[in-house]
Amino acid sequence: MKQNQTEQVTPKSLAISFEHGKLRVLDQTGLPSREEWLQIQSAKDMRDAIYSLAVRGAPLIGVAAVMGLAVHVQNRENEFDAAFDLLLSSRPTAVNLHNCLGQARATWKASPESTRARDLMRFAMQLWQEDIDLCDQMAELGAREIPANSQVLTHCNTGGLATAGIGTALGVIVKAHAQGKITHVWVDETRPVLQGARLTAWELAKLKIPHTLICDNMAADLMRQNQVQSVWVGADRIAANGDVANKIGTYSLAVNAHFHKVPFYVVAPPDTFDPKCASGKDITIEQRSSDEVLSDPRLKGVGTPVWNPSFDVTPSALITKIITTKPN
Amino acid sequence: MKQNQTEQVTPKSLAISFEHGKLRVLDQTGLPSREEWLQIQSAKDMRDAIYSLAVRGAPLIGVAAVMGLAVHVQNRENEFDAAFDLLLSSRPTAVNLHNCLGQARATWKASPESTRARDLMRFAMQLWQEDIDLCDQMAELGAREIPANSQVLTHCNTGGLATAGIGTALGVIVKAHAQGKITHVWVDETRPVLQGARLTAWELAKLKIPHTLICDNMAADLMRQNQVQSVWVGADRIAANGDVANKIGTYSLAVNAHFHKVPFYVVAPPDTFDPKCASGKDITIEQRSSDEVLSDPRLKGVGTPVWNPSFDVTPSALITKIITTKPN
Repeated sequence: MKQNQTEQVTPKSLAISFEHGKLRVLDQTGLPSREEWLQIQSAKDMRDAIYSLAVRGAPLIGVAAVMGLAVHVQNRENEFDAAFDLLLSSRPTAVNLHNCLGQARATWKASPESTRARDLMRFAMQLWQEDIDLCDQMAELGAREIPANSQVLTHCNTGGLATAGIGTALGVIVKAHAQGKITHVWVDETRPVLQGARLTAWELAKLKIPHTLICDNMAADLMRQNQVQSVWVGADRIAANGDVANKIGTYSLAVNAHFHKVPFYVVAPPDTFDPKCASGKDITIEQRSSDEVLSDPRLKGVGTPVWNPSFDVTPSALITKIITTKPN
Repeated sequence: MKQNQTEQVTPKSLAISFEHGKLRVLDQTGLPSREEWLQIQSAKDMRDAIYSLAVRGAPLIGVAAVMGLAVHVQNRENEFDAAFDLLLSSRPTAVNLHNCLGQARATWKASPESTRARDLMRFAMQLWQEDIDLCDQMAELGAREIPANSQVLTHCNTGGLATAGIGTALGVIVKAHAQGKITHVWVDETRPVLQGARLTAWELAKLKIPHTLICDNMAADLMRQNQVQSVWVGADRIAANGDVANKIGTYSLAVNAHFHKVPFYVVAPPDTFDPKCASGKDITIEQRSSDEVLSDPRLKGVGTPVWNPSFDVTPSALITKIITTKPN
């Protein structure tokens, strides 16, 4: 009976599911044309899902990793440390992955052996529900910044596919649209992995919110034509001085917004803030495979040298406001 | 004998060839993995080659269109007007296409009927050789602006695949590299058609010039890291006030160069200047198919709305200098 009660309170999300004891994540690499779910039976399964970007978005990664850990140790309690290390290594830049896993370990260590597996699962569920609540709060706060008749622009994916809830930056947009204040959403395709073209456009279409896809290099021209009233992005890590590490291309967009006097907002939950980083200089930037940039079939096998940083750092001075749920 | 003499003086280029009476253009849509030449037997053939981007680059288009016209009327003199109109319609934004075809028509009309086909062919060859000479002159002038130990960044393709000669912006880079002043070239991939990834990287590899491919949205981050000492781009049309229409993404790059105090150069032959355009506002911007932006196989059939302007306009104030062969 107790197990059934646990299942009843499992939160509902767009991209992660835990029903009848089965943990599954939506494979976001196949979107928008293919909707396939991956079953997660071990820490290794979840680590692979995160590394391959099947599961992505800083807040969702945190929830998913802890759920993966909780599932892994259900019948493999002696493998906690190995599972923990494996999950921690899946994305070096995501600070909330570190935070969430750190809290999970604290829960594990504080619990008596007889209940620690169940306590960890309860903690994972709680973390999941908290993310849903956090998203709602940030969306409410962010939407206040958006005046009527706004066209907004967003980069990467920060919605229901990036979080366990309504989203961060995209959550604000969805909320403000529901309030009747947004007339149009411009979606950066977000090279090289195309999170905007594949994921954000897919979410907006599902929600019937008017939107248009652009290449990242077109955003400046839209701003020049007064077609963008504000820019909304998420964050992977925020340094103590307010510098923001986020998907590559964010910095270019921030410079352009600054030049065109377009307000530039970052939306991120509290655990994105990393007080141990004094400034953006202290943030490690992951370099990814050149294959991502050479994705066009015509470029295969040519051997062109590529620079492919996953993130860039936007200095605090270019950011109008960081929307979060605690004062910053 | 006379015909052989004409053939002997045919200029040599990377992407257009006229040998033994056969006009051919390199199909640039297949590069870098497939090198295929298209035979051009009519104005329609050349119009299709220009429209499909098999032949591209403002200077090369001008030479190619006039060569196409000259070949078409060799045995079809009565079709001059129809052939002329067809070629004129192939790219609305390219002002030198208009200029070159206009000069070709003047040559045709000024010639006696008995020699006008041959006179037109001679004019076409002369135009071709002039483009080669112009490129050399611009490269020489531009290279003077580049100090030793420079890393430079370029957008789109402006080399031997875009002109009949060494190139415009890329010609400057090639020349300055030969002078030992360039240590590295950063190549914008240039979404959505990837002229940088497919063409510029291919040319630089052929020339053994050290280079690295980036996504367009990464250029700003390189500038922030002082990895770019100057930016070099071409132009499709230059208004009387110095505003420059060029490949989409140029404007975003210019704003970023301005913010980072990186010199931003435009290199363009004299016929790119359009005194009839007072400013950038008077330049017609071609909208292209959404298929170009939705090129990733995963995006096929999803029906995402797309904005896809072929060019943007960079205001004169953001341009350090326009390099050309006449004073401006």
